[in-house]
Amino acid sequence: MAPDVYAEINNPSKMYPIAINLMMSIVAYLVTVRIIPNIKEKFIKANLFGIDMSKTTSDKVPESLGVVTGCVFLMTMFLFIPIPFGHSLFNGSFPHDEFVEMIAALLSICCMLLLGFADDVLDLRWRHKLLLPTVASLPLLMVYYVNFNSTTIVVPKPFRELLGLSIDIGFLYYVYMGMLAVFCTNAINILAGVNGLEAGQSVVIALSIIIFNVVELSGKLWKAHQFSLYFMLPYTATTLALLKHNWYPSKVFVGDTFCYFSGMTFAVVGILGHFSKTTLLFFIPQVLNFLYSSPQLFKLVPCPRHRLPKFNSKTDRMEISTTVFRYSELGVLGKISISLFKLFRLVRWQEKGGYVYTNNLTLINLVLYYLGPMHEAKLTSVLIGIQIFFTCLAFVIRYPLASIFYEV
Amino acid sequence: MAPDVYAEINNPSKMYPIAINLMMSIVAYLVTVRIIPNIKEKFIKANLFGIDMSKTTSDKVPESLGVVTGCVFLMTMFLFIPIPFGHSLFNGSFPHDEFVEMIAALLSICCMLLLGFADDVLDLRWRHKLLLPTVASLPLLMVYYVNFNSTTIVVPKPFRELLGLSIDIGFLYYVYMGMLAVFCTNAINILAGVNGLEAGQSVVIALSIIIFNVVELSGKLWKAHQFSLYFMLPYTATTLALLKHNWYPSKVFVGDTFCYFSGMTFAVVGILGHFSKTTLLFFIPQVLNFLYSSPQLFKLVPCPRHRLPKFNSKTDRMEISTTVFRYSELGVLGKISISLFKLFRLVRWQEKGGYVYTNNLTLINLVLYYLGPMHEAKLTSVLIGIQIFFTCLAFVIRYPLASIFYEV
Repeated sequence: MAPDVYAEINNPSKMYPIAINLMMSIVAYLVTVRIIPNIKEKFIKANLFGIDMSKTTSDKVPESLGVVTGCVFLMTMFLFIPIPFGHSLFNGSFPHDEFVEMIAALLSICCMLLLGFADDVLDLRWRHKLLLPTVASLPLLMVYYVNFNSTTIVVPKPFRELLGLSIDIGFLYYVYMGMLAVFCTNAINILAGVNGLEAGQSVVIALSIIIFNVVELSGKLWKAHQFSLYFMLPYTATTLALLKHNWYPSKVFVGDTFCYFSGMTFAVVGILGHFSKTTLLFFIPQVLNFLYSSPQLFKLVPCPRHRLPKFNSKTDRMEISTTVFRYSELGVLGKISISLFKLFRLVRWQEKGGYVYTNNLTLINLVLYYLGPMHEAKLTSVLIGIQIFFTCLAFVIRYPLASIFYEV
Repeated sequence: MAPDVYAEINNPSKMYPIAINLMMSIVAYLVTVRIIPNIKEKFIKANLFGIDMSKTTSDKVPESLGVVTGCVFLMTMFLFIPIPFGHSLFNGSFPHDEFVEMIAALLSICCMLLLGFADDVLDLRWRHKLLLPTVASLPLLMVYYVNFNSTTIVVPKPFRELLGLSIDIGFLYYVYMGMLAVFCTNAINILAGVNGLEAGQSVVIALSIIIFNVVELSGKLWKAHQFSLYFMLPYTATTLALLKHNWYPSKVFVGDTFCYFSGMTFAVVGILGHFSKTTLLFFIPQVLNFLYSSPQLFKLVPCPRHRLPKFNSKTDRMEISTTVFRYSELGVLGKISISLFKLFRLVRWQEKGGYVYTNNLTLINLVLYYLGPMHEAKLTSVLIGIQIFFTCLAFVIRYPLASIFYEV
C-alpha cells in the first residue's frame, strides 16, 4: 500500500483542496480563539448564561458559544466552496452532483445550528429535540436519494445463507439515516455535565473520523473521504478553539447549539461519505451512555432534573449524584433493568429505610463509582481517555474484525 | 396572448408544482397563525421583548417573531423540495443544476435567518449588519457563477451608439448582486417603527413579485418565474400570518430577524430568477427612504438613537419626531443635503434660539409632515398605500416604459 500512498499524494486534485482547507482551518481556529473572549459578554447581556454548579464561585458563565464556532465553521466552508470546484469551472463539465452534496450538507448543518440556537434561547420542549434534527436532515436525505439512492445493505457472511449477499431495505434505509441524525445530535448532549466534556469528546470523534478518512484516501472511495475531510478539518479547528475556553475551569459553556451542530456535522459526513456504520463505531461511549441512561430517560427509574455529578466543595472533587426510589414502586421494565445493573455491579446500590439509593445512570457517575471521587479536570480527562480507548477499539473492529464478516 | 395562457395552464410540469406549493403555503399560514400566540411567552422569558413606545401601556411585546415565520417557511420548503423534481427522479435525467439552485437559495436564506436571530439576541454591531448578508449571499453567488455566469448587461437604446448593444461588467456584476443582498436586508429594516409596517411592506413587495411572476409565467423564461413562485408563495403565507399578530395594536414584533430573512428571500428570487432590476423597482419606497435618510445614516446630520415618530397619548396620534442641531456645526455635505431638502420642502424646518429643529429624515416622518398627525393604524395604512402606489408605478416602468429603452 505504501507506494500507492506516495502516488496518491502527488494527485493534485486529491491533495490540493485538502491542503487549502487545512490552512483555512488554521485561520478559523485563530479567529475563533480570539472571537470567543471578545463576544462572551454579549451572551451574558442576552441572558444566555449558566452558573457552574461544580465551582465554589457563582459567576455567570456565558452559554451557547457553540453558535460562534458554528458560524465561523459555516463562513470557512462558504469561502472554501469554490476551491475543490475551481478546475471544473473552466472545463465545462461542472460536477453539479458533488456540488449539490456540499451545499445540501451545509444547509442541514446551518438549519441545525439555527434550531439549536433557537432551542438554547427559547428553551423548546423535549419533543422538539427529536423533531428538529429530523426536519434539518431532510435536504440531506433528498440529496442522498438523488445522488445515490443505494438502500442496499451487504449481509454479513454468517447470515448469507439465510438472507443472500445483500438486501434492499428501501425506505427503511432513509428512516435509519434520519434516526442517525437524531441520535448523533442528542448523544453528545446527554454525555455532558463536566467542564470540557462535550467539546472534548467531539474533538476525539472528529479526529477519529479524520484518521479514518486519511487512511481511506488511498482507496477506491477516496472522493467520499475527501468530502468528509473538507468538513471535519474546519470543524475540528473551531471546536479546539472552543475547547480551549471550555476546558476546566470553563470560561464559556457550549450549549445545546454546539451539541446539535456537532451531531449533525458527524451525521452529514457519515451519510454522504457512505461510512455511517463506521461513524457509529466512533460513538460507542455515547451509545453505551445512552443504553445505560435509558431507564432514566424513559422514566422507568426516577430521573431528577439534573443528573450531573455532585461537587464536594470541601475536597474540591466530584462525587456520584444519586436518585432515590422505592423498588416496589417501579414498573416491570424498571425493576428488570435496575436489577440487571445491580447484578452486573453497574450501579452503586444502597438501601435505607425502605428506599433504594443508586447513582444516576450516566457514564460519568459510573466512572466515579468505579474510580472514586476525583477532581473535575481529571474526570474529564478520564472520560476523554475512555473515548480514545473506544476509538482504538473501533479501528480494530473496522479493520481486522470486519474482514470476518465482510469482504474487505 | 390569451390562448397562450390557456395552453400553458395545461402544461402540467408548469402548473402542478405551483398548485401543490400554494396548498402547502395555506397550511403554512394556518400553522404559523396558531404557533405565534402559543410560543410568544417563551420569547418574553428569553428576554426577547420590547416596550411599544407608541402605546399608553408598557406591556412587554415579544420581539423577533420573524424567526418563527422563517422556520415555518424553511420547513415548508424542505417538504416541498421533492415535488418539482418528482418526475425527473425516475427518468434518469435529474436536473442537478436546478436542484442546486434551490438548495443554495435555501442555504442563503437559512444562514441569514440564523445571523438575523443571532443579531436580535446578541445585539451585534453595525458593521455586522453589512458583513453578514454579504457572507450569507456567497453560496448564492457561487451557484450563479456555476449555472449562469452571465455578467453581461443589455445597454439601454439611447446609449447604444456609445457603448454597444451590451457590455460584460464581469466581476462588478457579482459586487452588484452582493450589494443587492445587503440593500434588501437593510432597506426593510430602516423603513420601520410603526406597528405592522415591516410585515406589511414585505407582503406588498412579495405580492408584487408574485403578480410579476404569474404574468411572466407564459413567457420564455417561465422556469425562472416558477422558481420564484416556489419561494414567494410560502413566504407571503407565513408573513401574512405574522402580520395578523403584528398589525395595530401589535401583539408581537417582527425583529431584525424578519427583515434580514425577508430581504434575503427577495434578493434570492431576484438574482436566481434573473429579475433583480425588476425586484429593485418594487423597492422604490425603500430606496427613497434610504436616500432621504442617508444624511442621518451617514451622520452628516445628527441622528438620535430612535427616529420613530412621537406618540401623543392625549390625542392618540403619531406626530413628527425631530432632531436638533446648529446649522453652522454641520459639515459641507450635511449643509448641502439639508438645504436641498429645505429648498424642496422635504423637511419641516423650524429655527429657535440659534438651533434648527427638523423632522427626523424618514419616509414616515415625511408622511406625517405632509398629512399631519394621525392614528398609528392609519399611518401604517397610508405607508402601505404608498408602497402599493409605487408597485403600480413599477409595473408601468417595467412594461410600457421599458420598451422605450429595451426591446421587449
